[in-house]
Amino acid sequence: MTASTASPLPTVNRQFTLAARPVGMPKESDFRLVEAPIPALANGQILLRTLFLSVDPYMRGRMTGVRTYADPVDIGQLMVGGTVGKVVQSTNPQFRAGDIFAGYWGWQEYAVSDGKGLQKLDASVAPVSTALGVLGMPGMTAYFGLLEICQPKPGETVVVSGAGGAVGSLVGQIAKIKGCRAVGIAGTDDKVAWLTGEMGFDAAFNYKTTQDYVAKLKELCPSGIDCYFDNVGGAVTDAVLPVLNVRSRISISGQISQYNATKPEPGVRPYIYLLSKQSRAEGFIITQFMNRFPEGIAQMAQWLKEGKLKHREQIVEGFENAPRALIGVLSGDNTGKMLVKFSEA
Amino acid sequence: MTASTASPLPTVNRQFTLAARPVGMPKESDFRLVEAPIPALANGQILLRTLFLSVDPYMRGRMTGVRTYADPVDIGQLMVGGTVGKVVQSTNPQFRAGDIFAGYWGWQEYAVSDGKGLQKLDASVAPVSTALGVLGMPGMTAYFGLLEICQPKPGETVVVSGAGGAVGSLVGQIAKIKGCRAVGIAGTDDKVAWLTGEMGFDAAFNYKTTQDYVAKLKELCPSGIDCYFDNVGGAVTDAVLPVLNVRSRISISGQISQYNATKPEPGVRPYIYLLSKQSRAEGFIITQFMNRFPEGIAQMAQWLKEGKLKHREQIVEGFENAPRALIGVLSGDNTGKMLVKFSEA
Repeated sequence: MTASTASPLPTVNRQFTLAARPVGMPKESDFRLVEAPIPALANGQILLRTLFLSVDPYMRGRMTGVRTYADPVDIGQLMVGGTVGKVVQSTNPQFRAGDIFAGYWGWQEYAVSDGKGLQKLDASVAPVSTALGVLGMPGMTAYFGLLEICQPKPGETVVVSGAGGAVGSLVGQIAKIKGCRAVGIAGTDDKVAWLTGEMGFDAAFNYKTTQDYVAKLKELCPSGIDCYFDNVGGAVTDAVLPVLNVRSRISISGQISQYNATKPEPGVRPYIYLLSKQSRAEGFIITQFMNRFPEGIAQMAQWLKEGKLKHREQIVEGFENAPRALIGVLSGDNTGKMLVKFSEA
Repeated sequence: MTASTASPLPTVNRQFTLAARPVGMPKESDFRLVEAPIPALANGQILLRTLFLSVDPYMRGRMTGVRTYADPVDIGQLMVGGTVGKVVQSTNPQFRAGDIFAGYWGWQEYAVSDGKGLQKLDASVAPVSTALGVLGMPGMTAYFGLLEICQPKPGETVVVSGAGGAVGSLVGQIAKIKGCRAVGIAGTDDKVAWLTGEMGFDAAFNYKTTQDYVAKLKELCPSGIDCYFDNVGGAVTDAVLPVLNVRSRISISGQISQYNATKPEPGVRPYIYLLSKQSRAEGFIITQFMNRFPEGIAQMAQWLKEGKLKHREQIVEGFENAPRALIGVLSGDNTGKMLVKFSEA
């Protein structure tokens, strides 16, 4: 057994479990911080200490007791989530203490793993936290959700909702790289300024201070909308419909405005618009493209290196603040990728 | 000049023009029956006498003063529509008196044509009226709208709304030919009996006498819905959403329930369903597939000949009844293809 020598091995794990199914926006009391013993490793196992936890809008769906494309989290179960951590103990010769991996071991400070599904990270290539953002699930969602579902062509106009978030801010930049006009919809003036400044979007607007979304979209998309990448849904998406061009493509990546709805809110049915414009709306789940992640990560890493792609992380310090961080994401508090950074042991 | 010899050449044409833009369901007073002189033929022209006029739901859209995928009909202009007619006079050696052609010369008893866009019909192959139905635009809409947009696979469940109409009744039969379960939604018990009887659908229901569409769809589609071919929209389409399977496909061919709406009626937004089921909704216009019509017509004619495909025509006699026939189609009065048959000259 190869043990990490510097510090004594931890014996107590802290975890967040689901305490109650949220009604509307989750509250901190919907999560429970519990302690659990860390078992001794069986042969072939490793012990990981979590460095970063990703908090993402999709987690709201898992807290609801309905099976969609994934099983829900049951009451009392560990909250699921993407993680980056360091090996602190290993009985598996393929995993050395000190190595850093990305995985999906959820909201806990330590995890015992047999190593399956872990992705080894090289901190000299990119900061390891990027495996949860631009080079991880959000990055792949932007990359495949835009390029495969929307198939944007140079000169076309791409509109993205939730543009200030981890996925949306990348979608607009990939659209620019592909020669498109990129227009973002976001919820604060600061996000709008960041998008049209550092992120290089052609235009953006704050839907919270705009009265007539259709008029604003027509103003910012003088040639109409060819691709719409939707993270948000609701009234913002309704407003896109009258501005769609013939043969336009809508990629449905998220519907954050609807996740906390206690009953479905009636809205505009899109069919007559899709019919008259011969257009398409398609939902996707990023796991569809799992076998192409190496290609997507390589391309995004290349663009990062060339300075064509930028990203921002918003770090919440301390594991105990994870519920607050997720509530922040669901409230649109984040600019770029929201991460929870764990305190040093 | 080759003139038809039997009867004197006509000098007066009767036409229906658009008298007023309808508000809600069109009224007969929205159409005007006018007389116009038939001009002498220029060199290369032919004179056609109309035998059949097709009346179709899409015509409602052309009566609205809004450009969608086609120019609207202006007030005072001839109503547009698919037609079958006989050559009564010709100065063009390629067109002989007595030959029968399908074309798009609109709501009139006679048409002068240079022959462009006319499709020669052979009455020994199929009754010439089928060029406006099963072997014409409605048939091609069913064929390409199902096979290309939905891409049904054997064993899948196909649901079609407006199943008693010209397009819908063919969609279910094509689904059966392709090895699918076919379920129809229609507006009368007679249509339901016809669909599950002569048309060979596996199941159908009358939405006007059904309370809970979702429960009925779950009952008739025990394996869920893989393909939905939508002619209708509205509450019927809302009810399909919770029954969709993963990777299902919605082909939006028509939205007849919405054509007479004076303002958009709020309904269920489909995005969260499309997202959680990784599904797709796509609108199409049959002209997209124009260059593949020969292939589609040949296949449909073959299935007709083999007895695998059946169709019904509902004939309204007399040109003067064309407005009433269209209003009937928009009211769901027709079973199968509604046609106006012109009286003998």
